[in-house]
Amino acid sequence: MTTLPSPEDVLDARRALAGVAVTTPVLRSERLDRLTGASVHIKCENLQRTGAFKFRGAYNCLSRLDRQAYPGGVVAYSTGNHGQAIATVGRMLGIPATVVMPSDAPAVKIAKARENGASIVLYDRSRQSREEIAAQIAARSPVAVVPPGDDRFIIAGQGTAAAEGLDQIGISDSPLILVPCGGGGLAAGTCLATEAMRSTAEVWAVEPEAFDDTRRSLASGDREVNPTLTGSLCDALLAPTPAELPFSINRERLAKVLTASDQDVLRAIRFAHDELKLVTEPGGVIALASLLCNPDLVRGRNVLVIVSGGNVDPSVFKQALDLDVNADPTGRAA
Amino acid sequence: MTTLPSPEDVLDARRALAGVAVTTPVLRSERLDRLTGASVHIKCENLQRTGAFKFRGAYNCLSRLDRQAYPGGVVAYSTGNHGQAIATVGRMLGIPATVVMPSDAPAVKIAKARENGASIVLYDRSRQSREEIAAQIAARSPVAVVPPGDDRFIIAGQGTAAAEGLDQIGISDSPLILVPCGGGGLAAGTCLATEAMRSTAEVWAVEPEAFDDTRRSLASGDREVNPTLTGSLCDALLAPTPAELPFSINRERLAKVLTASDQDVLRAIRFAHDELKLVTEPGGVIALASLLCNPDLVRGRNVLVIVSGGNVDPSVFKQALDLDVNADPTGRAA
Repeated sequence: MTTLPSPEDVLDARRALAGVAVTTPVLRSERLDRLTGASVHIKCENLQRTGAFKFRGAYNCLSRLDRQAYPGGVVAYSTGNHGQAIATVGRMLGIPATVVMPSDAPAVKIAKARENGASIVLYDRSRQSREEIAAQIAARSPVAVVPPGDDRFIIAGQGTAAAEGLDQIGISDSPLILVPCGGGGLAAGTCLATEAMRSTAEVWAVEPEAFDDTRRSLASGDREVNPTLTGSLCDALLAPTPAELPFSINRERLAKVLTASDQDVLRAIRFAHDELKLVTEPGGVIALASLLCNPDLVRGRNVLVIVSGGNVDPSVFKQALDLDVNADPTGRAA
Repeated sequence: MTTLPSPEDVLDARRALAGVAVTTPVLRSERLDRLTGASVHIKCENLQRTGAFKFRGAYNCLSRLDRQAYPGGVVAYSTGNHGQAIATVGRMLGIPATVVMPSDAPAVKIAKARENGASIVLYDRSRQSREEIAAQIAARSPVAVVPPGDDRFIIAGQGTAAAEGLDQIGISDSPLILVPCGGGGLAAGTCLATEAMRSTAEVWAVEPEAFDDTRRSLASGDREVNPTLTGSLCDALLAPTPAELPFSINRERLAKVLTASDQDVLRAIRFAHDELKLVTEPGGVIALASLLCNPDLVRGRNVLVIVSGGNVDPSVFKQALDLDVNADPTGRAA
């Protein structure tokens, strides 16, 4: 599974996902355009099946599984949404799925994966390696490991969100695509998607402030490691280091990496609630958060923002609802 | 403004709204289908401009205003969303707008209307008549009164949501459309829309439990009055009595009227948050609430549910988030 995906793989994934994945809507907001000076298009992958874009990669990958070679099905390690997608797609396709999840993942994500019939193995994010646990399971039984990012078909499937979004907004001047970034799979797939769609769009990735491994890795040329694995609201983006395949794509093609703080993210969740009527999760809304914080960088451009997921714990959503309703969503008044 | 709207008026409104109103998405949920035994399609009018379907009627009406006869613009009385729509459309079309709003309307709705440049007149819902206040304003200056329901073009515009939804879901067997019901304009417009689209769909309206004036009026044949005007979470549906024009349509065409309680509505807000990733307001989600409570009535049918608005006060949304996450969304386990 170490073959690099190509732009053609993204087009191929679109064909595989046709009629299976939701063609998620693209929303506009006059207030958002006013605040940023840009023409902003929100690609609502929180409205995707399983509540996150991860469904696209999971389905594209599992629908191609060699079932004779892997009668035991698949094992996935995941901060949550990937695991949920693997569990759901496993149920859809009749493929047994085991999901290795951190014990501090949102309860709603763990419960959902169980509901979809997956076997769940919990681990301690600060002490254990999820890759090792998955590898041990794969060594004991005929199951294929499906990593959240380091897979040709996962990356290509994830790229279909941007490809679809570019189709929906049509040709535009100085296009820009903003995507959340954990391991880097969505960013890499998005870079391939722009090529596949013959778009001149720049792709910018957005990481949590204290988890800027991709930003530092692009600067140094090596895959840098985050000093810690906890301490951000963005549970979906806490990869220890850029995944290998995505990084080899992102290092050549990503135009910029931005970061956003937990407070920026909470303000964006509140903005999406107030203005877009969308439920978003911290890691899913981080690209919107960064857009709101950086109007100077985007003014006059046509921006496609991927809102990648909506599986938020109610306690976090309530933090956003408790913010001052009159607070400046750009954070500049704070 | 007492001409009855026709099915042709709905088609005409669709043409007026093309490229102006959002073609709101229709969402599916496997869990919702499982819980109800029906094929459910959620028409997301909470994602409409101004966060509610009211934009459709307001634009259809105001774009036809005789500006020479009414140089002072328009005055609207409204529980909130209609006022917001009139304010927004007034700004879009350069028509001065005055909005008479109850002082207990959600703060977010009052603030938004002001933001759109409307003049706001607040009144006490329990002691004053909004119709009289609006009529007094219209008597003093050359402005047209735009009632929330009693207008041919408002009703026809509101009907475009269902017409669009029927287009989106295509031909289906034993179709059924569920809509929230306050004054009855959306229900009436929806009845006309089914006729305009040559659909065999039944239309069912859903009212708050203690505000079942349309249900009682259909039974008695006369426009019945609600005993009180406060005491429901569904601030958008608290009309004192069925509006005249809508009632004359609904009495002939509505197939059924259901009711839902505040608790049913809160569970539906939570369901929409968890499963659909949508922010909904109490009055906007009441048709979904009733669907969840009445699986026996809808089993095997193709149901289009209009979620009509998302302008919810954070304090109400938090009540829904505080419900037990494992609670049965159908309310039967409670």
